[in-house]
Amino acid sequence: MAGEYRIDPWGSQVIREYEKLFKYFGMRPFKEVLPLLEEVAEPHRLMRRGVVFGHRDFEIVVDAIKKGKRFAILTGLMPSGKMHFGHKMVIDQVIYYQSLGAEIFLAIADAEAYAVRKIPREELIRTAIEEYVANYLALGLRPERLHIYFQTNYRKEYYRLIQLFSRKVTLAEMEAIYGEDLEPAKIVSALTQAADILHPQLPHFGGFDVVLVPVGPDQDPHLRLTRDIADRFRSELGLRRPASTYHRFMTGLTGEKMSSSKPESYIALTDDPEEAGRKLMRSFTGGRPTAEEQRRLGGRPEICPVYEMLAYHLVDDDAELKRIYEDCKSGRLLCGQCKRYAREKLVKFLEEHQRKLEAAKDLAYKLVDVPDF
Amino acid sequence: MAGEYRIDPWGSQVIREYEKLFKYFGMRPFKEVLPLLEEVAEPHRLMRRGVVFGHRDFEIVVDAIKKGKRFAILTGLMPSGKMHFGHKMVIDQVIYYQSLGAEIFLAIADAEAYAVRKIPREELIRTAIEEYVANYLALGLRPERLHIYFQTNYRKEYYRLIQLFSRKVTLAEMEAIYGEDLEPAKIVSALTQAADILHPQLPHFGGFDVVLVPVGPDQDPHLRLTRDIADRFRSELGLRRPASTYHRFMTGLTGEKMSSSKPESYIALTDDPEEAGRKLMRSFTGGRPTAEEQRRLGGRPEICPVYEMLAYHLVDDDAELKRIYEDCKSGRLLCGQCKRYAREKLVKFLEEHQRKLEAAKDLAYKLVDVPDF
Repeated sequence: MAGEYRIDPWGSQVIREYEKLFKYFGMRPFKEVLPLLEEVAEPHRLMRRGVVFGHRDFEIVVDAIKKGKRFAILTGLMPSGKMHFGHKMVIDQVIYYQSLGAEIFLAIADAEAYAVRKIPREELIRTAIEEYVANYLALGLRPERLHIYFQTNYRKEYYRLIQLFSRKVTLAEMEAIYGEDLEPAKIVSALTQAADILHPQLPHFGGFDVVLVPVGPDQDPHLRLTRDIADRFRSELGLRRPASTYHRFMTGLTGEKMSSSKPESYIALTDDPEEAGRKLMRSFTGGRPTAEEQRRLGGRPEICPVYEMLAYHLVDDDAELKRIYEDCKSGRLLCGQCKRYAREKLVKFLEEHQRKLEAAKDLAYKLVDVPDF
Repeated sequence: MAGEYRIDPWGSQVIREYEKLFKYFGMRPFKEVLPLLEEVAEPHRLMRRGVVFGHRDFEIVVDAIKKGKRFAILTGLMPSGKMHFGHKMVIDQVIYYQSLGAEIFLAIADAEAYAVRKIPREELIRTAIEEYVANYLALGLRPERLHIYFQTNYRKEYYRLIQLFSRKVTLAEMEAIYGEDLEPAKIVSALTQAADILHPQLPHFGGFDVVLVPVGPDQDPHLRLTRDIADRFRSELGLRRPASTYHRFMTGLTGEKMSSSKPESYIALTDDPEEAGRKLMRSFTGGRPTAEEQRRLGGRPEICPVYEMLAYHLVDDDAELKRIYEDCKSGRLLCGQCKRYAREKLVKFLEEHQRKLEAAKDLAYKLVDVPDF
């Protein structure tokens, strides 16, 4: 299964920063649990390819799958800006777990969007449904065993957790995790995130012993706080630590960080397909300055956003991806040709996706209880 | 109406501390609005006697009564210890406003009791219902137009307010109000209290323009924070400042502060009547060292807890209270005789009250949605 077409999570500078998560914060390499997962299910492409690179307590998820035990996935979305391929990575994993039988809890972080990011309520409500939930459904998230909720519009037991949690967390602990400039909005948001992650364990929400949170490594502070809170409410509420996995962030098309505030760095799922194709054609690559050099030295897929688009999103077949990787490395495949290939796949993907989007939008409004203020 | 039997709010050292509330924090003397209230309703005994000594924006309440407009009372209870006559003062006022047509919102501060005071959940739930709500009902609080809720077991719009409020309050402001040792529990509690006070204004809870909060002056910091929050959400949510009144605390039977942690300082509404009578007989008084001195100099009702029991609770007739006051001041009424008189009234009151208590307990459990954890 392992091969050179896998992305080395330590291959880029960005990722090397994650090393401290392993060294100091007890995160474990995902490759340690990949063979366990392979015994019970075909791992998701992002796992096979090393994009999911870290975890905490993933063994409990494998065990649940193995024993046919119920388990839950908790994921959240920030209703801000446009949904792009960077955001798609989490929901791809969520859909994968749903296909394995997981119950899905999807928190719309509207409280945080309003209080911390200061987005007007009307805007964030519309963005949550039309931009995020609709795209999730069009991507294949099924409405069965799916609970989508706004943080400001949920059930009282969830809010009770926030109130109870506040007792057993100190400001000093929060400052150690989130920095010194804590404001009430951030404190409430952090406690709310802990309630997001832990509430599926309550009998009121299904009583799931095993809850997995697939996130980017930037979310790990929340996981660490939440694990501590779970420990402190172990005897009182019977809460257990959640499991979590961590995935690499996508590189932006500019070769730098993908950022919602830089439209040239990402492709949105609602971008016009042809326009998106042109954006991809303009992308930074891991190619050499000249075709001659590239034929001689080979390309560098490990730093190439176009290769990432293929590996993360557009090519599901491992053999096909491996061929692309090797052709690039050997210098047989030049960037222009590779980009045209990726563009073709991208345009096709977006056209198909966007055909499903209007119906998905209607379904989204039906599935979600939208707050009235 | 005014007379010497009135208690001068500035008469005792304790009360003098409240002066800064007038000087620096914009509280107004209640006596300024008493004549306005007299035009539309008979003021409550605690108002007539100067026990209710301060207010903010009470004019809007008078105006509502005058125009027959709906108005709401928000009161809270801390489910801790025993309900004593010091606690009774607020609920007496609430019952008075209910008789004038007000809708009553009664917040059980169980979130605060758990998070800040660290009382176990089971204990505080039982205390809230059996010790407080039951006594309130036995005192005459009627179940119509009455909304009793646990802070941890209410409706989502209430919790939404807490989330939204967190955005427009800074830690520095909270520290200025509550002191520097703020912990997440206190921050969440303060925001929750603001939601308690402001939520009756939401259409979901009746859309009351006029909300009055009758409290002791120790609660004024919450009112000040809440008024600021109302201002900041004026345009977004249409919130208005609440009105509030402030009442003197009762002096303990020891002559010092009445305190739940000192059983000798208070009489609980569930104390055995005869035992309570004996406690009253042992009370500190405003009497002189010898009967001779008292006949010559007169007693000092203004520092006497027994006189307070009569004035605040046991004597509703102003003429009767005035007679007691004057007989004490003139030295005609000695402490022993006065105490026996007060004891008789107290025992009778407690016997009658406690006869209603079992039925009130049953009603309390029926009226309140009790949280299941």
